Amino acid sequence: MKKIRIGIVGYGNLGRGVEASLKQNSDMTLVAVFSRRDPCILTLLTKDAQAVHMDHVLDYKEKIDVMILCGGSATDLPTQSPEMATHFSLVDSFDTHELIPTHYDRVDAAAKLGKTIGIISVGWDPGLFSLNRLYGEAVLPQGETFTFWGAGLSQGHSDAIRRIKGVLNGVQYTIPKEKAINMARTGNGRNLITRDKHSRVCYVVAAEGADKEKIETTIKTIPNYFADYETVVHFVTAEELQLNHSKMPHGGFVIRRGETGQDGNQHVMEHQLKADSNPEFTSSILVCYARAAYRLHQLGQSGAKTVFDIAPALLSMKTNEQLRTELL
Amino acid sequence: MKKIRIGIVGYGNLGRGVEASLKQNSDMTLVAVFSRRDPCILTLLTKDAQAVHMDHVLDYKEKIDVMILCGGSATDLPTQSPEMATHFSLVDSFDTHELIPTHYDRVDAAAKLGKTIGIISVGWDPGLFSLNRLYGEAVLPQGETFTFWGAGLSQGHSDAIRRIKGVLNGVQYTIPKEKAINMARTGNGRNLITRDKHSRVCYVVAAEGADKEKIETTIKTIPNYFADYETVVHFVTAEELQLNHSKMPHGGFVIRRGETGQDGNQHVMEHQLKADSNPEFTSSILVCYARAAYRLHQLGQSGAKTVFDIAPALLSMKTNEQLRTELL
Repeated sequence: MKKIRIGIVGYGNLGRGVEASLKQNSDMTLVAVFSRRDPCILTLLTKDAQAVHMDHVLDYKEKIDVMILCGGSATDLPTQSPEMATHFSLVDSFDTHELIPTHYDRVDAAAKLGKTIGIISVGWDPGLFSLNRLYGEAVLPQGETFTFWGAGLSQGHSDAIRRIKGVLNGVQYTIPKEKAINMARTGNGRNLITRDKHSRVCYVVAAEGADKEKIETTIKTIPNYFADYETVVHFVTAEELQLNHSKMPHGGFVIRRGETGQDGNQHVMEHQLKADSNPEFTSSILVCYARAAYRLHQLGQSGAKTVFDIAPALLSMKTNEQLRTELL
Repeated sequence: MKKIRIGIVGYGNLGRGVEASLKQNSDMTLVAVFSRRDPCILTLLTKDAQAVHMDHVLDYKEKIDVMILCGGSATDLPTQSPEMATHFSLVDSFDTHELIPTHYDRVDAAAKLGKTIGIISVGWDPGLFSLNRLYGEAVLPQGETFTFWGAGLSQGHSDAIRRIKGVLNGVQYTIPKEKAINMARTGNGRNLITRDKHSRVCYVVAAEGADKEKIETTIKTIPNYFADYETVVHFVTAEELQLNHSKMPHGGFVIRRGETGQDGNQHVMEHQLKADSNPEFTSSILVCYARAAYRLHQLGQSGAKTVFDIAPALLSMKTNEQLRTELL
């Protein structure tokens, strides 16, 4: 069987995660990794794949079926996705929720022009969590949906800590509050807001002689990030941080509670994720949506898509017959 | 806006659940309920809907967009779904897992002939749980999937109890074992089989003077149903049974555990359902898939479909733009 030929754009944590995930998907093959860095300094895990400078990406127009874009949502994807979509079918993980409609329109126009498929905002939130929000609301129209994030490492909050004077290094975990989760499940969560639902736990390495009390107060009063939250600060050594906090775990919950019928019967649909590695889990999602992009393009479709537009069967290596026999 | 015109075939617990669910979906309207019983004895909850004998169902060919079939999988649906599909787009909840491929083929042939859409095996298992098995496997190809059922009332097992001499009434709950669930989550569940994963709890009303010890032994030794399971039998009064065990709750878990990358990072995707009323929850799922059947038929498609073939957006009352803005 002809394998789906994949290109990766960007070779950070996410790009390396995609490369690893492709090895678990026997119907796909990695052709090349594209980067703005000198390709000579990239050491790929995949023997037969090439490291290529972004300047030469168009040379691969006939050699790649789907590009998986692994850049960031702040500066890379807003321009990269529409540019790429005029030449390649693609999947990206654009995750700035409020800018998704604009991003969708740009990719849609480019993909229709290029007769390609561009599946945007793929990952777990936006992505799998969005799907669970949709399924929950469609099945139980009378009810409420709650999203909790964590326990997981938040990059933005960790960066905020590391910018404080006297801090050598630090990480922040977002922790969903058990009490709030139970309120959501039992129909008492209507008025919960984000800061009622989560607490923040920080592990900080202070410089020698730094004023720890002042650091702690500074963290706890950073507006938006920490000030309104229940925040706990632990000081640790550089070794402890390295040993216990160098992974990037994440996860969360989507809970839909609703009622049906005349007797007020209650129902709870709950989706929970626990990922040891946020980038590797996100990469695995990108890869199965690349399969869908390939198949839709083969069917002659074009334009931007989101996870909402993708029939689940398109994600699986199995045939429709197998799916009905083995998984239905 | 023109509403989607719905017909219900069969007016048992499931049919009444569909009728109740339609009231929560403002884009749909119930036109008629079809039954083999004398329509005069059916008291519908919906003012403007008609109760009609099955013999007259074809008179409604131009008046109904989607039929929701609420008969049983043992004798009703195997003939009813293909017959109906030649005339109406439909949704059914055919749930005999091993016969799904045959049922699919029959409905597919009929629906293609009739230029209709027939979405089969819709509910929570098969249905939402199947979707979670597919998403789990597609995202984490290297791993295992576990399905647990319950806590919930099992109709077949309750019937088996009620057939025993000296038993006036009784119900059986299937209970997933916490220990087995934790083994599944932590990667130690590979060898779990159904009877390791579930226990059975029975509430039995014995006839006056009946030999309770003998009843308990009889229950615990019924092959397949109870013999291989950890089974607990409680004797209760008829009043207690009516008060505490007259609802039909159900639920369960789908757990996908998998690993990614070179460091063996572990990930767990878990879907959990708790439904106070099994028939009302199943009905609510049938109703949102009726929306998808209508939309696919409007697009000119025909043939049999399963939940795997339905893009999630087709289930929602919201427009694609709204979905991207509000739920993605």
